[in-house]
Amino acid sequence: MLRFFAAPEQFREDRVYLDNDEAHHIKKVMRLGTGAVVRIFDGQGREYEVELIVERGAVWGRIIAQVPAVREPELKVTLAQGLAKGEKNELVIQKATEVGVQAIIPLICERSVMKLSPGRNKEERLRRVAREAAKQCQRSVVPTVEAACRIKDIVTRFSLYDTVLLLWEEEQACNLKQTLQELRQKRAIKQLLVLVGPEGGFTAAEAQEAIEHGAYSVSLGPRILRTETAGLVALSAIFYEFDELSL
Amino acid sequence: MLRFFAAPEQFREDRVYLDNDEAHHIKKVMRLGTGAVVRIFDGQGREYEVELIVERGAVWGRIIAQVPAVREPELKVTLAQGLAKGEKNELVIQKATEVGVQAIIPLICERSVMKLSPGRNKEERLRRVAREAAKQCQRSVVPTVEAACRIKDIVTRFSLYDTVLLLWEEEQACNLKQTLQELRQKRAIKQLLVLVGPEGGFTAAEAQEAIEHGAYSVSLGPRILRTETAGLVALSAIFYEFDELSL
Repeated sequence: MLRFFAAPEQFREDRVYLDNDEAHHIKKVMRLGTGAVVRIFDGQGREYEVELIVERGAVWGRIIAQVPAVREPELKVTLAQGLAKGEKNELVIQKATEVGVQAIIPLICERSVMKLSPGRNKEERLRRVAREAAKQCQRSVVPTVEAACRIKDIVTRFSLYDTVLLLWEEEQACNLKQTLQELRQKRAIKQLLVLVGPEGGFTAAEAQEAIEHGAYSVSLGPRILRTETAGLVALSAIFYEFDELSL
Repeated sequence: MLRFFAAPEQFREDRVYLDNDEAHHIKKVMRLGTGAVVRIFDGQGREYEVELIVERGAVWGRIIAQVPAVREPELKVTLAQGLAKGEKNELVIQKATEVGVQAIIPLICERSVMKLSPGRNKEERLRRVAREAAKQCQRSVVPTVEAACRIKDIVTRFSLYDTVLLLWEEEQACNLKQTLQELRQKRAIKQLLVLVGPEGGFTAAEAQEAIEHGAYSVSLGPRILRTETAGLVALSAIFYEFDELSL
């Protein structure tokens, strides 16, 4: 069944009012009319079967029933990803959403080529990518794309997570699997933050700062992964480890 | 150190002769001259430190020493990937090479939108992507890109592998982790073939044919992964399971 998005504030009692983007998609792209039954998800875990009413000015829907949402991972993973060149950021967000990430924080690193300007346009663009990816992969939660920040800012938020992993290609001793499995034996891991450097990697100073604030530095093995690959490989491995790639 | 590629037959005694592509790259892009010391790998696991001799017509090198190649996975994984639209195939090959795949077989499926024509141009293009990705991620083995084939052809080759996995979104009972861990307890897994459908997935008949020939059908969980994501997630999980993302 076709799926569309409406934020929680667009729902009122048994009705949901679609925004312009989705209304356009419904009318002009999918060419649906009044009476069509679709699914609408609110991006925060709820999903409904809805009968559409397509009017000239607006599209709204009458809620028929709430439907069970596709299972979200119990493990909440936030990916803090060093900014790469334009479309690679979108690739990372799309793929991370499919795999099951909870939130994405663009990281501005010393070696980042692309810098997010204070204007919000790029982050808005990234949020749209997350929303489209959630639609596609049938998640009812849209991962949040947080404001871009630097290592020195993100370390102050480490306490929001119970575990912080730093993927660092200069790490010689610890690998992801061993570290995760040892940590799991000591404590429950429910909120995980994963830091991935930009092309060229974290500088030693950046890695050091993260480690001093409690991040576990891990290697992903001998093959050099591009930045946009590293995050996805790590997420896949983490969700595999925590049995989140299961029915 | 800069890395270039030369096939085994381009090595003669203590010399190596670069092909036109690599010679162009050395002269025109990297602007290296005689005396530059680089690494040259043969795509089959050997790598050398080489002093370049840059002449007007050709570039060749004098081998200084063999160097240890970056560790290749012990587990040999072949990814048979349902053909997707153009650039997605290249993305799959690039990422699969980084993660550590041994070989890639483009699969022509009933729901494949893109069809490989008998001409070899597209496969040649895919081989070039694998070679460039191997250069980038410092692997000394270039994954082979085999000729595109259909499910009915590939099932006749299942006996070349000790285990065949079919990623199938309609699988309701078995997931990747449980299946892999159960299989590992029964036998050594060294040669693994992973089948991934195209956009739209395998048809029930295709899946049935693979299963009848011995493939294990597995799910990657409740979130719907795009075809180009599914292969990479599965490879990441498999290499994680087999401790191949370790130093």
